[in-house]
Amino acid sequence: MAEEQSKSLKLAIPKGSLEKPTLDLLEKAGYNIYVSSRGLRPSSDDADLDLFLIRAQEVGRYIGQGFLDCGITGLDWATEAGTELVDLAELPYSRATVRPTKWVLVVPEDSPIQKPEDLEGKRIATEGVGITQRYLAEKGIKADVEFSWGATEVKVPDLVDAIVDVTETGSSIKANKLRIVDTLLTSFPHFYASPEAAADKWKREKMERICLMLKAALDARDKVGLKMNLPEGQLKQALDKLPSLRRSTVSPLAEDGWVAIEVVIEEKVVRHIIPALKELGAEGIIEYPLNKLVS
Amino acid sequence: MAEEQSKSLKLAIPKGSLEKPTLDLLEKAGYNIYVSSRGLRPSSDDADLDLFLIRAQEVGRYIGQGFLDCGITGLDWATEAGTELVDLAELPYSRATVRPTKWVLVVPEDSPIQKPEDLEGKRIATEGVGITQRYLAEKGIKADVEFSWGATEVKVPDLVDAIVDVTETGSSIKANKLRIVDTLLTSFPHFYASPEAAADKWKREKMERICLMLKAALDARDKVGLKMNLPEGQLKQALDKLPSLRRSTVSPLAEDGWVAIEVVIEEKVVRHIIPALKELGAEGIIEYPLNKLVS
Amino acid sequence: MAEEQSKSLKLAIPKGSLEKPTLDLLEKAGYNIYVSSRGLRPSSDDADLDLFLIRAQEVGRYIGQGFLDCGITGLDWATEAGTELVDLAELPYSRATVRPTKWVLVVPEDSPIQKPEDLEGKRIATEGVGITQRYLAEKGIKADVEFSWGATEVKVPDLVDAIVDVTETGSSIKANKLRIVDTLLTSFPHFYASPEAAADKWKREKMERICLMLKAALDARDKVGLKMNLPEGQLKQALDKLPSLRRSTVSPLAEDGWVAIEVVIEEKVVRHIIPALKELGAEGIIEYPLNKLVS
Amino acid sequence: MAEEQSKSLKLAIPKGSLEKPTLDLLEKAGYNIYVSSRGLRPSSDDADLDLFLIRAQEVGRYIGQGFLDCGITGLDWATEAGTELVDLAELPYSRATVRPTKWVLVVPEDSPIQKPEDLEGKRIATEGVGITQRYLAEKGIKADVEFSWGATEVKVPDLVDAIVDVTETGSSIKANKLRIVDTLLTSFPHFYASPEAAADKWKREKMERICLMLKAALDARDKVGLKMNLPEGQLKQALDKLPSLRRSTVSPLAEDGWVAIEVVIEEKVVRHIIPALKELGAEGIIEYPLNKLVS
Amino acid sequence: MAEEQSKSLKLAIPKGSLEKPTLDLLEKAGYNIYVSSRGLRPSSDDADLDLFLIRAQEVGRYIGQGFLDCGITGLDWATEAGTELVDLAELPYSRATVRPTKWVLVVPEDSPIQKPEDLEGKRIATEGVGITQRYLAEKGIKADVEFSWGATEVKVPDLVDAIVDVTETGSSIKANKLRIVDTLLTSFPHFYASPEAAADKWKREKMERICLMLKAALDARDKVGLKMNLPEGQLKQALDKLPSLRRSTVSPLAEDGWVAIEVVIEEKVVRHIIPALKELGAEGIIEYPLNKLVS
Amino acid sequence: MAEEQSKSLKLAIPKGSLEKPTLDLLEKAGYNIYVSSRGLRPSSDDADLDLFLIRAQEVGRYIGQGFLDCGITGLDWATEAGTELVDLAELPYSRATVRPTKWVLVVPEDSPIQKPEDLEGKRIATEGVGITQRYLAEKGIKADVEFSWGATEVKVPDLVDAIVDVTETGSSIKANKLRIVDTLLTSFPHFYASPEAAADKWKREKMERICLMLKAALDARDKVGLKMNLPEGQLKQALDKLPSLRRSTVSPLAEDGWVAIEVVIEEKVVRHIIPALKELGAEGIIEYPLNKLVS
Repeated sequence: MAEEQSKSLKLAIPKGSLEKPTLDLLEKAGYNIYVSSRGLRPSSDDADLDLFLIRAQEVGRYIGQGFLDCGITGLDWATEAGTELVDLAELPYSRATVRPTKWVLVVPEDSPIQKPEDLEGKRIATEGVGITQRYLAEKGIKADVEFSWGATEVKVPDLVDAIVDVTETGSSIKANKLRIVDTLLTSFPHFYASPEAAADKWKREKMERICLMLKAALDARDKVGLKMNLPEGQLKQALDKLPSLRRSTVSPLAEDGWVAIEVVIEEKVVRHIIPALKELGAEGIIEYPLNKLVS
Repeated sequence: MAEEQSKSLKLAIPKGSLEKPTLDLLEKAGYNIYVSSRGLRPSSDDADLDLFLIRAQEVGRYIGQGFLDCGITGLDWATEAGTELVDLAELPYSRATVRPTKWVLVVPEDSPIQKPEDLEGKRIATEGVGITQRYLAEKGIKADVEFSWGATEVKVPDLVDAIVDVTETGSSIKANKLRIVDTLLTSFPHFYASPEAAADKWKREKMERICLMLKAALDARDKVGLKMNLPEGQLKQALDKLPSLRRSTVSPLAEDGWVAIEVVIEEKVVRHIIPALKELGAEGIIEYPLNKLVS
Repeated sequence: MAEEQSKSLKLAIPKGSLEKPTLDLLEKAGYNIYVSSRGLRPSSDDADLDLFLIRAQEVGRYIGQGFLDCGITGLDWATEAGTELVDLAELPYSRATVRPTKWVLVVPEDSPIQKPEDLEGKRIATEGVGITQRYLAEKGIKADVEFSWGATEVKVPDLVDAIVDVTETGSSIKANKLRIVDTLLTSFPHFYASPEAAADKWKREKMERICLMLKAALDARDKVGLKMNLPEGQLKQALDKLPSLRRSTVSPLAEDGWVAIEVVIEEKVVRHIIPALKELGAEGIIEYPLNKLVS
Repeated sequence: MAEEQSKSLKLAIPKGSLEKPTLDLLEKAGYNIYVSSRGLRPSSDDADLDLFLIRAQEVGRYIGQGFLDCGITGLDWATEAGTELVDLAELPYSRATVRPTKWVLVVPEDSPIQKPEDLEGKRIATEGVGITQRYLAEKGIKADVEFSWGATEVKVPDLVDAIVDVTETGSSIKANKLRIVDTLLTSFPHFYASPEAAADKWKREKMERICLMLKAALDARDKVGLKMNLPEGQLKQALDKLPSLRRSTVSPLAEDGWVAIEVVIEEKVVRHIIPALKELGAEGIIEYPLNKLVS
Repeated sequence: MAEEQSKSLKLAIPKGSLEKPTLDLLEKAGYNIYVSSRGLRPSSDDADLDLFLIRAQEVGRYIGQGFLDCGITGLDWATEAGTELVDLAELPYSRATVRPTKWVLVVPEDSPIQKPEDLEGKRIATEGVGITQRYLAEKGIKADVEFSWGATEVKVPDLVDAIVDVTETGSSIKANKLRIVDTLLTSFPHFYASPEAAADKWKREKMERICLMLKAALDARDKVGLKMNLPEGQLKQALDKLPSLRRSTVSPLAEDGWVAIEVVIEEKVVRHIIPALKELGAEGIIEYPLNKLVS
Repeated sequence: MAEEQSKSLKLAIPKGSLEKPTLDLLEKAGYNIYVSSRGLRPSSDDADLDLFLIRAQEVGRYIGQGFLDCGITGLDWATEAGTELVDLAELPYSRATVRPTKWVLVVPEDSPIQKPEDLEGKRIATEGVGITQRYLAEKGIKADVEFSWGATEVKVPDLVDAIVDVTETGSSIKANKLRIVDTLLTSFPHFYASPEAAADKWKREKMERICLMLKAALDARDKVGLKMNLPEGQLKQALDKLPSLRRSTVSPLAEDGWVAIEVVIEEKVVRHIIPALKELGAEGIIEYPLNKLVS
């Protein structure tokens, strides 16, 4: 016990576009993180955690080098770092939407490049040099890949022939009159550990608890609780017709002939379920919000 | 099934002051609407919906002409449009408050006009020319009604003798030193359909489901869930004294002599109920929020 | 003198998108207007002015009916009002840019309508019903014109075949994938008076002074003052090569052989003039801003 | 009943840094307060309340003088006022955090003053003259205490030798390179009544109900509801290992061998409980938010 | 010279509502002051200045006690402080407008108090206890004056009978349905020095230079420069008719028969002068802005 | 002439922290640049310019590769790029202040590293790998330099031993409790051209004109115009005592015995000059702002 108190877990939070959604997720998971306006070493209400705000591109590097125990970063940047990491959990959230980040090969709308093979001998600019080189190597294509510090879209066609860039919604691509030729990689954030930390019993357990809570918060995001009273005689038909009710808790009501039903379902299913339930005679239907869910 | 997929429902959302509360209500009802910064054709997560952002004044016209199947707009503007519409639901929300919009006949504080009849031969400016003309006709009053493009309050007394204008709270009227002479119309938003759409089985069912969900979201707005444990012996007295508990679900607790009570009640009643319950010996009283409610 | 003090000029300022640029222009012209947050009757530091904030669409109507003496509104809305007005000055400013407002006939990019004549028998929605009807009449085209309360772009092609709408930059048109078929009217704000006010000596003089100051402020907008010292021997060559210097004030300097030159020129010419002047040996070239300019 | 309607309770809300958190708390407690932009006499949806926005420093004075019945203000300012008040409830919230306000004796980091006794004969500036004088008297220290209107930190060491100032987090003190010598007082807001109001049956009951609701809202702030299903055989072990579950409601499930457990616990405990419950075989664990809680 | 460098002037800037206009004025006067977000000891580009941000109420006290050499604060608060100060300059600016602050005796619109004498035996709340007591003493009125920490308007009539409060525009008074009975004091900011600093040669000179620059910036605020060319023959008539031109600089132009005129005048006069000048044949009239002006 | 019209100059504007100050400077210089919200290819009112928004780090690379003719970027990034560039002008502005960017070697306050030589064998993180390696090579120090994607301050001491980072004011360094060991480079923006563009007559002339205008706008930034009238007899003494007046334009006034003096001087000198001038009897002293200045 005394030993445990001296332990601490060095955990990296990705600075940049994933920063706010990651902090929000941690808070929903029950970890309150305090970031001062300038500081890059946040504090938290869990004394075991030693936190670092690090660019998503570098989280993998510093875990791989053993300077940090674990951290959250995209599959893409972990791949780019090229170091050995233990993947403890995929966390399906993203910058602005719930869709994964995609790395796409992009050219101007009117470019002659129609398929990856047309890149032979061309110049490509990208923030993900490793991702792009691996992709070209797999396809046996030879092309010049140069590192881009950002604002990559402007470079075609004047400065390079094609770019490999990140998109969530594709809207920036359309706005810049560009065309997607291929998708190289689809990426969500993951929770990564160093092999050393993953082999340490205390750290492993600590990290798995954090992952459990993060996933509980993510699972609750698009789910809701639903309760209603139903005439007992309709129960079988309801379960037959509405498969999403099958995992309900059913309890008897004081009033004879009625049962109480409670279930957790996807929020977007509710608009189909409620009208059907009403037709079956359900009463007192209420939908309530969830904070966390462990199925 | 295949046939249904090709169906679509053309639905108008009122652009302007009702736009944000209408989109918020749709989201609470389970329909996520995406409005791009410039676009007037929102998309949604319901593939059956074909959405239009249309000025509240014109929603009725385009449904009446058969160009759209249905839409949400105020009773006032639907009346003004003067076309045949099927009224599927009243939706009691409004721009800024929960009070209905009122069309009022307004004059300067010190105007000699004291009652509607004093308008005989006068000039009236209003955005609701039809509403005003119908009102005057009913009362047998003859007056000049001219269309106002807005900023109507400034027009009395220099440019016209009276105005007919919209108010929710009356605060703008007081701030401009005006006086209300009469109320012409009280209006909440309604969900309207065209006669053709209302006669189409698929469209009718679709529209009724949307209305059901919209009303479920509105009903949950000012309600909360309440749970508590009560000594079994106090149950009768509680139900006698607190009529709002009569629709409770009562279930036995493991501990002898206690029952669990759960009920949905108006949020504003809670401050009266809880002190009374406490006096009756209730324990573990919790209040929780609701998303939707179908009684 | 005593008589003059009792006089007052009823002046309309256009409420809406022209409101802020009009108030800014009046302030640059030397008239400070105070608009309270709710009030539509601004006050000013000129006791002779009795000000009204009126929608641009209605300024012409109320001047034409004689309720107001004068006001600022677009040529387009003055035309739409169809009343007799005295045009005292064109004021070349606009909502967001320095370009005039254009009324354009617009269809979807892929519409079969290619020229005005293709509108025969079609439906057109517009806020400018009069402008559109006059245009169609001149061309001998018969089409249905219906009044639009705004958000007009969304209406093609589902609700109408074409629209007539206002644009300064055309960017909203491109963003909505529409195509311009023809331009009906090009419009800047004007200062209009009623025939009665224009015939009244005091009012006429007052209005002309205001117009003079408004134009002085507009003229100074894109002009700057330029001063420099030049070797006297270069003066002729400078005036020959740089026509914009010809209206300069030239004065002798204490130092023999040098003259001081001062001129008011267009700001955008300066980047061509200064390098040339430097080559001619000019020294101490300074550019300074102007508030007002009466040539 | 008729008599009660004519009764009213004069209640002070502290204006200034406590204003927003106090209004938020009242709303969570079920009292909607409407503050107009300028007005200092808010209205509410409880017709019995007659509300005043009064500076926290003066709430105690006006209750003590009998002009108001009751009000919310900090223990510090109530002490400073020095009048006789009845303390009905401590309300543990604060300006920006959940920590109490502290009155601290502060000097520059490099001041020779190391303990309270070093203040003998020095000059102290403070907004809390009474608090400071009482503190010095208790310790038998003689020093000059002068009233400060604010911006007190700037005064050391040029204008005074030490200050007594308010802090929640200490961050402003560090930023100004100051050092805390001693803490004079720790203060949360309280609900105070005048002796007269506390002796009036109707007012006393009314005030106690308000206090009950305020505390119910505060208690729910950091608590959540937790539900799960557990194999019946694990129940004893769960209650043994997880003391926070001991107040659970346990109910039988339709499915044999399983029980449903529901409990209200501190949100910050959840991250420890859920992993343990999962290990014990719990399923369908959900966490949901609370509005109010009366244990 | 070496001695001078070691000198410094301790100058107070009023914190609060006068802070921003005072810093703006100092900047226009040529002193750039840097206030960090939290710090109360601003730095500047004048190494001789040692700056303090101090509440306007206390500036006078700390100058009077000799802790500071000089500072800017309102005449009202300097009076309230009651210490001996040397008044070096009145600086006619204010919080939000260019009007002075007024201390007014205020009662509810429907109060029986109609004149100062009606206050006999009444209770008055005010932030300016000294100002109010001196006023009552002069008039021989006996009343209770209690210190108010702010939000004073709300106190009448429930808590006190009258208030003495500050106003620039009177708008807050009207909004709160109050009535002004009398004006106690009219106050602009002044530049005050301590008697010791005023007697020190270096400090006196330094302070007088700052005052000169502050007044130069204030004088330029509402003035503009005006230049034009005029036919020489019209000069006399112009000077006769337009008294504000009499201080013009007149210089001959190269072109025979024309003179150049340059003058600094009040901006608000320009709208009267320019039309008259144009009638007299003036050409090339330009108005340009000023930064500073020493007449 | 016709040939020139087909010419165009490809000019890079640095995207990122220098973007806004660079666009502001171009506007002051007379070039209006229009950047749409998403687009990276700005347009301008100079048809000869073909503009690119490119990260400051890459401007040098693309000019060096010949894809662009010229551009503005910091001396630091141009050095880092390591390509051959023609340096046409230093432009002394920066991100937030008027101070140059500095690249500094930084360690934690309590690090044992006291001088550059202490870095031997250590790890350094930096965005400027080339700048850092060149610096180490010059000093004969061997250390590990790794590329940092940003948020570099957080890396010491946990992840690296020292960092090389950019600062304008040093405030971020102090806030993070770091210490500067050495300054590697001091950098202002420059206007760079490719050798090819510099050798093309039309492009060279075009670029030199742009540089001239940019410098004219920068020179005017901290200068003002000053005019006054002075008794002729005081002129010699004024010029003797106030060296900054020596480049004045002196002209005779109509009134005998007085001369008019006009001069351009540094704004920060004005507060010393004006009091001296006043003492010498100067009258009508005015200071006015400048847009551009070519000495």
